[in-house]
Amino acid sequence: MGNQGLKPYPGTRDFYPEDMEFRNWMAEKQRLVCERYGYRQYGAPVLEYLDLYLRKSSEEIVSEQLYIFTDRGERKVAIRPEMTPTLARMVSSRPQNYILPLRWYSIANFMRYERPGRGRLREFYQLNVDLLGSDSISADVEVLALACDVMKEYGAAPSDYVLRFSDRRLLDHSFPELNGDQLRALGRILDKKDKLNVEDFRKTVDDLGGQWQKKDLIHRVEEFYELSLDSAGDHPILGQLKEVRDRLSDHVSSESFKFDPGIVRGFDYYTGLVFEMNDTHPENARALFGGGRYDKLLSQFGKESIPAVGFGMGDVTLQDFLEVHSLRPDLTQKSSLFLTMFSDDLAADTEKVASSLRAAGLQVELALDGSRKLGKQFDLAEKKGHSHAGVMGPEELEKGMIRIKNLKTGAQQDMPVADLNPEKLSTL
Amino acid sequence: MGNQGLKPYPGTRDFYPEDMEFRNWMAEKQRLVCERYGYRQYGAPVLEYLDLYLRKSSEEIVSEQLYIFTDRGERKVAIRPEMTPTLARMVSSRPQNYILPLRWYSIANFMRYERPGRGRLREFYQLNVDLLGSDSISADVEVLALACDVMKEYGAAPSDYVLRFSDRRLLDHSFPELNGDQLRALGRILDKKDKLNVEDFRKTVDDLGGQWQKKDLIHRVEEFYELSLDSAGDHPILGQLKEVRDRLSDHVSSESFKFDPGIVRGFDYYTGLVFEMNDTHPENARALFGGGRYDKLLSQFGKESIPAVGFGMGDVTLQDFLEVHSLRPDLTQKSSLFLTMFSDDLAADTEKVASSLRAAGLQVELALDGSRKLGKQFDLAEKKGHSHAGVMGPEELEKGMIRIKNLKTGAQQDMPVADLNPEKLSTL
Repeated sequence: MGNQGLKPYPGTRDFYPEDMEFRNWMAEKQRLVCERYGYRQYGAPVLEYLDLYLRKSSEEIVSEQLYIFTDRGERKVAIRPEMTPTLARMVSSRPQNYILPLRWYSIANFMRYERPGRGRLREFYQLNVDLLGSDSISADVEVLALACDVMKEYGAAPSDYVLRFSDRRLLDHSFPELNGDQLRALGRILDKKDKLNVEDFRKTVDDLGGQWQKKDLIHRVEEFYELSLDSAGDHPILGQLKEVRDRLSDHVSSESFKFDPGIVRGFDYYTGLVFEMNDTHPENARALFGGGRYDKLLSQFGKESIPAVGFGMGDVTLQDFLEVHSLRPDLTQKSSLFLTMFSDDLAADTEKVASSLRAAGLQVELALDGSRKLGKQFDLAEKKGHSHAGVMGPEELEKGMIRIKNLKTGAQQDMPVADLNPEKLSTL
Repeated sequence: MGNQGLKPYPGTRDFYPEDMEFRNWMAEKQRLVCERYGYRQYGAPVLEYLDLYLRKSSEEIVSEQLYIFTDRGERKVAIRPEMTPTLARMVSSRPQNYILPLRWYSIANFMRYERPGRGRLREFYQLNVDLLGSDSISADVEVLALACDVMKEYGAAPSDYVLRFSDRRLLDHSFPELNGDQLRALGRILDKKDKLNVEDFRKTVDDLGGQWQKKDLIHRVEEFYELSLDSAGDHPILGQLKEVRDRLSDHVSSESFKFDPGIVRGFDYYTGLVFEMNDTHPENARALFGGGRYDKLLSQFGKESIPAVGFGMGDVTLQDFLEVHSLRPDLTQKSSLFLTMFSDDLAADTEKVASSLRAAGLQVELALDGSRKLGKQFDLAEKKGHSHAGVMGPEELEKGMIRIKNLKTGAQQDMPVADLNPEKLSTL
């Protein structure tokens, strides 16, 4: 098997222990914030019937990105590319068991056949947060506040990110002269505005206007971008968005969020609030994740229509964010003990001590080769990242004593094995 | 979409919040024990090149159970059915980065196309524990002790389980008259012995003996089953197994493990120690999980040969074990607060209090509908499993006070919002 055979499948990642610690750290922060808001974690299969996505996911995902195959029982199946269809299926299949509103979250892996690049891989992990069963502004505010709290939990400063929000209906309301297809086409262009320069954007809109015989389209679009919540008046949609903004400002620094009529989002199932979390760092100025309200999706699964609002936060862009802002933590600092083996004939006795130290809550990695010189064993302990090494010769074993060496300072101390515990070790 | 469309793919599971809590609890115990032994967690993609399994996995897995397909780039790929080939690939691709011995574990999902049944599903989660780079008896003892410690961590009594162990080489050594194919065939029958009655087992062995012109095979097999560590003498393999037993008895109650020459295990890659953890409960008398030593597998990936020992512990049989022994915990006992909304015009103020209570570490689920009567809101809180509900009318909000109601006892108490924290709540 050549070197080719040692690589993971393109666009997926091996998580070596240091990568895994980071991934676990990211997930743990998400879990913490979600639980604080009373959200409960759920999980689901990595494989679903293809049918689930044919009807619900965006056309781009299904036709270009979905991993589809036929199983040994001739069933058409797909590896999940997103969580929302599964969530809708799960909630709809047990309507009697759950009392609305439901607050659920999950942290799971997904696969999409994309061209791998910065912030984009074929397998990624995503936090999904959803509040089901309420169409209130309180629900919108809660989900936005939760999204910002996750950023804060990572140690991000208010100026590190900006949550841009709008309402999916604003486009329809502002362009009554356009039909459904035209609105979707215009939406797609607005969605791409940040990736185009000003001239290209103007030209694209102008071309569309010509094509649709709406000569003033570019001016109408400019007006659209000038919509402001401060002059909301009795505009039904802007009025709601203004309330969202005012209430969100009780929880989130005002520099961390703003109304932006250009936020449209790609998924067809959004029906109200839409938002995007953006990185403000010049080297990573991009959308980190997004979400919104999807009040009609669940009615496609069950008899009931259940209003819903939520978001999905992927780990690939998040990792970029944490790294450009120097928020990736040093996870190597915790105390752990490498227990050396003085000689092979003491193996059984050393194992017994390791066992008792573990019972006291210590993390103990045991040397396996007593014929190795102690100096070499200390080297090994240090290279493996342990903070301390323990030594017991025949005399120490006899007396129930252990010598602890701090591998950073070199300081040594003898103490009874029975007195050692995690707190004690961290002070040695 | 009919009811069919609401079901998960056959043999996979939806994890509703109460299922997920249990799954997380199982994984957390595994993590705790592994970390205590100095093992570090790793992770890997759910999809691999098919090639990885064609060469390494058992024939049964590849030809009957593997989920195989061709991706949009014409690559032959498979959903992982086990972790060991991936582990071997990962370790072999970065030989310079890791210092042996390596202690690694992972908790991940796998898929095999099997007929779903008790203890067997198509998607399952598995703890994989591996110690790489040592062929010492200390390594064998450590992995066995760790496996038993996981059982203890779940609260299992020594009589609830029995770890049966042997050495893969014992069969070859005991039947020098058989060739390789015959040894494999005999091994498969020994592996199935527990599923056959005595007569069927004898007949099957006798038939084989006749076929191979080894008339005394059944007697030789009976002798094999009578092998004992107490009469190991200078038998090279029994001598090692005796040392394993003696040293393991320092850590594990002697009723929880025993030598059993009939333990063979299905994977072709085992080269020494093999073991199986068995449930002793009459309603679930079966193998829960198993493992062993595989010293040759890694040399198929890298230049080096790296000795290794480990095991994989699946969640489906584990869950059965925990349930028949009444070890499944009640995870609903923790304190959490449902914050009622006195009236809709107090929504923003109530949100602010929720925010400050979360900052104090409380889990706070917020009512979203202030037009609902308080009694109904208490009902909702109780049905959602909260331990306490909080109430704030205009007067309380003014004074920074909150009324806390214990939903089990009905007891109520007024207190300053600023004094509330998780410890305090659990005493109310």
